[in-house]
Amino acid sequence: MEERVREKRPLVHHITNEVVMNFSANGLLAFGGSPVMAKEREEVADIAGAADALVLNIGTLRSSDVETMIAAGKAANEKGIPILLDPVGAGASTFRKNAVRKITEELDVAVVKGNAGEIAALADIPLKVKGVDSEESGDSTDIALRASEKLNTCVVVTGAIDIVAENGNYTTSSYGSPLLTQVTGSGCLLGTLIAACLTVEDEKEKAVLFAVEFYNKAAERAEANSHGPGSFAVSLLDELGGDV
Amino acid sequence: MEERVREKRPLVHHITNEVVMNFSANGLLAFGGSPVMAKEREEVADIAGAADALVLNIGTLRSSDVETMIAAGKAANEKGIPILLDPVGAGASTFRKNAVRKITEELDVAVVKGNAGEIAALADIPLKVKGVDSEESGDSTDIALRASEKLNTCVVVTGAIDIVAENGNYTTSSYGSPLLTQVTGSGCLLGTLIAACLTVEDEKEKAVLFAVEFYNKAAERAEANSHGPGSFAVSLLDELGGDV
Amino acid sequence: MEERVREKRPLVHHITNEVVMNFSANGLLAFGGSPVMAKEREEVADIAGAADALVLNIGTLRSSDVETMIAAGKAANEKGIPILLDPVGAGASTFRKNAVRKITEELDVAVVKGNAGEIAALADIPLKVKGVDSEESGDSTDIALRASEKLNTCVVVTGAIDIVAENGNYTTSSYGSPLLTQVTGSGCLLGTLIAACLTVEDEKEKAVLFAVEFYNKAAERAEANSHGPGSFAVSLLDELGGDV
Repeated sequence: MEERVREKRPLVHHITNEVVMNFSANGLLAFGGSPVMAKEREEVADIAGAADALVLNIGTLRSSDVETMIAAGKAANEKGIPILLDPVGAGASTFRKNAVRKITEELDVAVVKGNAGEIAALADIPLKVKGVDSEESGDSTDIALRASEKLNTCVVVTGAIDIVAENGNYTTSSYGSPLLTQVTGSGCLLGTLIAACLTVEDEKEKAVLFAVEFYNKAAERAEANSHGPGSFAVSLLDELGGDV
Repeated sequence: MEERVREKRPLVHHITNEVVMNFSANGLLAFGGSPVMAKEREEVADIAGAADALVLNIGTLRSSDVETMIAAGKAANEKGIPILLDPVGAGASTFRKNAVRKITEELDVAVVKGNAGEIAALADIPLKVKGVDSEESGDSTDIALRASEKLNTCVVVTGAIDIVAENGNYTTSSYGSPLLTQVTGSGCLLGTLIAACLTVEDEKEKAVLFAVEFYNKAAERAEANSHGPGSFAVSLLDELGGDV
Repeated sequence: MEERVREKRPLVHHITNEVVMNFSANGLLAFGGSPVMAKEREEVADIAGAADALVLNIGTLRSSDVETMIAAGKAANEKGIPILLDPVGAGASTFRKNAVRKITEELDVAVVKGNAGEIAALADIPLKVKGVDSEESGDSTDIALRASEKLNTCVVVTGAIDIVAENGNYTTSSYGSPLLTQVTGSGCLLGTLIAACLTVEDEKEKAVLFAVEFYNKAAERAEANSHGPGSFAVSLLDELGGDV
């Protein structure tokens, strides 16, 4: 599938957070896609309408961004291009929780991707354990399935084991590197790559699983070449241009 | 010329896009200049008035930024310091096209730098081919010359072959690396380096051509040391501190 | 102390500048902390109230950010978590000078960190020499002591020699690498690490000195592994996961 992405060079419109813009853009370029970042209300419908996919990421969200995301998302829905929603820190404030719910209510989102805590907050599922990072994968599977049913879409719950759930079914994937947790925006970049794969593969679960596995295998190779989180992030970008 | 830049350490005020701020700042520091990024309306005239050059880059432009850029630009024009305009994605929306035209109408811009599509959009030149990245260099030369005449300033059209046009004349340069297209903000950083060179060399075309060649030769050296776009970007920063 | 940080994984809320967000976040992750970046007025009190420390950094400040910083700071003060203030470019405009003063008047700031020029501007101390980067360390000590007295808090003045002053006393530290001056946000990242150390050590001066020395020794190791400012910044992130 990576060849199909490289051939198509999909234009992925991001309305994303300021921390990760550069890393997401460079990761998409390395993978073979073409990023555009635009969050001015006056132009987002134009930009989304010319794009092949749309990524909505609520890290560093401002209140005016919600309306902008919905405007871009409506243009994307009208054109029939996929929307990937990344509910970064959805449980961290009432503001974020309300924003992300408004987005899921008003838009037809193709894939929602987040860690267990974020997906639980978005789908209003009480977490059984407090420390989100250490929850059992059993809980994550339950969260993925329930969120997928509630939101009626494909849900990816990331963690040591990644879970892709839709229509009552789920698949797991356990590639990856612990260094991913030490690079800001590593999860956001996965969302970007999922969006890119959705533009070349109609079978949604296949596209999502490919992106999850390609990315995590690239991370494994990068870990082998690195001396810490700094060189790991650099090597990860190098590896995204490789083959699965 | 690089020694003159390192001796002067020119302060370059950027009103630029959020994706590339970090890379532009680090690239200018590596080259020997000093970056300042400021886009608050209340302070931009102070900052531009203390700077040696001003870079205006419309990637991730917001509507309120246009007035801010013009305020900074008027302070720059009054002080007589050069303005470099980078019309990122000028053809991507009516909003950007209008913004960049307003900027060129109200300010005296020393150099405009962009790819063929951006310069064509800015100067209202219909593109002969649709795929901007694959146009013949003949078209790019024509675009550079016509835009330079229309805007009455120095125009740089970047691509596999870079073209510098002013007063009906043009020069080409063909150094560089294909990896530059895989690093977000690589074009923006060239704009920053051009601005730095303009602060130490009155002959505008000489300053611009030096920056274009120095940067692209550094990219060639960086490519030789790299394993992909991640390590290339790191090596490019390393090489900017070297000699031509 | 680095082990205590890694065990606690302190959540450090940043309201910081757009140029350095990514580097600060990655540096804190490498060091063992957990970053959150949020500057929406509607959520900052929630975020700061859940955090272990708050970093306020005025680079790329917008006028609406001042009120936001004060709201977050009041939540931090109420909860008793430390605030680190980084008055980036405080002397560069009247806007920044006024903003940073308002912040110090309204909030109880644990540590103020900046270069001699920034601290002098904040504390309204006339600089004896014009070139801030080349001032005698004697002047920096004087600036640190006077600012500490005036602001009634711990003050760190960074430079070739770093000075930590509080209650009429000061300590100096002279580790580091000249390459730090070629990486944007290297000073901002030090502020972030100081904030992380304040969350595990009540003796303020001890926490601050540890962060200053740990960071600068990591920079010395990184310099040994690097070929220029690009690879230095990468290696610095790698080294932050090491031991003192």
